[in-house]
Amino acid sequence: MTPTTAFDFAAWARARRAEVEAALDACPADAVADLGQAMRYAVLDGGKRLRPLLVFAAAQSVAAGSAPAAVNAAALRAACAVELIHAYSLVHDDLPCMDNDVLRRGKPTVHVRFGEAQALLAGDALQALAFELLTPDDGSLDAEVQARLCGLLARAAGHAGMAGGQAIDLASVGRTLDAAVLRDMHRRKTGALLAASVCMGAAAAGLSPQSATWQALGAYGEALGLAFQIVDDVLDVTADAATLGKTAGKDAAANKPTYVALLGLEGARAEALVLHRHALDALSQLQRVHAGADVAALAALADAVVRRDH
Amino acid sequence: MTPTTAFDFAAWARARRAEVEAALDACPADAVADLGQAMRYAVLDGGKRLRPLLVFAAAQSVAAGSAPAAVNAAALRAACAVELIHAYSLVHDDLPCMDNDVLRRGKPTVHVRFGEAQALLAGDALQALAFELLTPDDGSLDAEVQARLCGLLARAAGHAGMAGGQAIDLASVGRTLDAAVLRDMHRRKTGALLAASVCMGAAAAGLSPQSATWQALGAYGEALGLAFQIVDDVLDVTADAATLGKTAGKDAAANKPTYVALLGLEGARAEALVLHRHALDALSQLQRVHAGADVAALAALADAVVRRDH
Repeated sequence: MTPTTAFDFAAWARARRAEVEAALDACPADAVADLGQAMRYAVLDGGKRLRPLLVFAAAQSVAAGSAPAAVNAAALRAACAVELIHAYSLVHDDLPCMDNDVLRRGKPTVHVRFGEAQALLAGDALQALAFELLTPDDGSLDAEVQARLCGLLARAAGHAGMAGGQAIDLASVGRTLDAAVLRDMHRRKTGALLAASVCMGAAAAGLSPQSATWQALGAYGEALGLAFQIVDDVLDVTADAATLGKTAGKDAAANKPTYVALLGLEGARAEALVLHRHALDALSQLQRVHAGADVAALAALADAVVRRDH
Repeated sequence: MTPTTAFDFAAWARARRAEVEAALDACPADAVADLGQAMRYAVLDGGKRLRPLLVFAAAQSVAAGSAPAAVNAAALRAACAVELIHAYSLVHDDLPCMDNDVLRRGKPTVHVRFGEAQALLAGDALQALAFELLTPDDGSLDAEVQARLCGLLARAAGHAGMAGGQAIDLASVGRTLDAAVLRDMHRRKTGALLAASVCMGAAAAGLSPQSATWQALGAYGEALGLAFQIVDDVLDVTADAATLGKTAGKDAAANKPTYVALLGLEGARAEALVLHRHALDALSQLQRVHAGADVAALAALADAVVRRDH
């Protein structure tokens, strides 16, 4: 694999985050007063923007030779759309009937600030807005790319993905899950949207799912998605609320199944490292099947996911 | 306008409803246990299926000359998708933090039956499933049609449509709204999805939004959408729960702004008749701009919307 030392990941990520922030800031312009405020509060000025970074990194890794401006415009739409889905999921997860959380990214959660009804609506509207962003009617995005992006996002967000993972989570509180069920839950709950981010980057770059390039990127996204959740479980035990920006130790307190409960702290850390290796292996494969693939940002993101402290 | 007496609307609607029911029944196959049950409970065996009927009626009105099987397959996907959005909105509207309703279509609401958390998730997953249905990856639906259907549905469901209307509704309880704000609320809250159903039928038939045919269908959908809500307001006052299948008189009890509060009962009824006339005028226009347009089902639906008792 190409050495990544020359790549300034921090500067790259900062620039991409600024693009996403500006695009999201310009977004729900037509929303009625309270709803628009709640939507903006849920979306802006928050988070690591990991999913958007994955979209950009994947698109740019294979964009050489394509029109860069068109790929970037498509990737920016995809990046914002996936972040809107992530943001809506946090708003709904925090509601009293779910995790009943009052703190998110160091701020009061949306329902604490705007009330439960408005939080419910804001989440619903953010999900719709994601698909609205992916379907501009001004001819700026190829219809085939629009359709592929909508399909990837819908499957990752729905019953087979994020919502399905939440449902397994709900059903499993207080129960002991075996490793297969725990993996399935996390693959859906967190992994599906992270993996979809990578595939949406590939789609933004004009790739089709049948290509070997897509398959390699998909394998990278799968490994990274699962690694992310394992590290999340580890951090829930080892980090404090100030670092996490959210309530710590609540999975354990709620008797939720986690990788730490299943494998122990060291076992979970070891599993995350194995998945990190799988992700890098997939990038080597990407370089074999796609001449000129630039995997620096994707490799740096895999490092960041496993080494993060929040 | 062509006389519609020869058209057996009841038989047509029964056949279309059966198609939709079968397609919805086959739908969330991969959903995990509880979530899948809650989704099916929310969607199956319920309602007049007005939105699907509008999709079919619009698609078939202008499909002469196109490949009927392809148009019907596209219309069926669109019909199911719009019904999934409608079903999700009912599940979320009924939640305790919104209308806190326990009865819907004569059955306990989803959160009463499955719990609030599961109802929240089921609604979220139904919204995603709508977009999943619109984006088959097997080549069975033209990418341009997929993209157009997703765009129409997202805009009708989101901040500029249904969710935005709900937000105005939330903000206006106990206040007097003037006619313009009340119309805007209803145009978004109910009208947008009904109008989108008609346009989605047009898209399923391969039309483009620039065509005069599309414009005429759009005008029909706008008028019908607003008429529907006015009749809803009238029925909330005049019908009983057994006929409605839901709690009656609750808008008035909640001091919600309605057309009846604004215009009086007779004024609201008169406004509904004016909109019914607009809808039929739009169908005459459709016949002028689109040779061979068959407006029988659309005209019968306009009649049904205004004359319904539930």
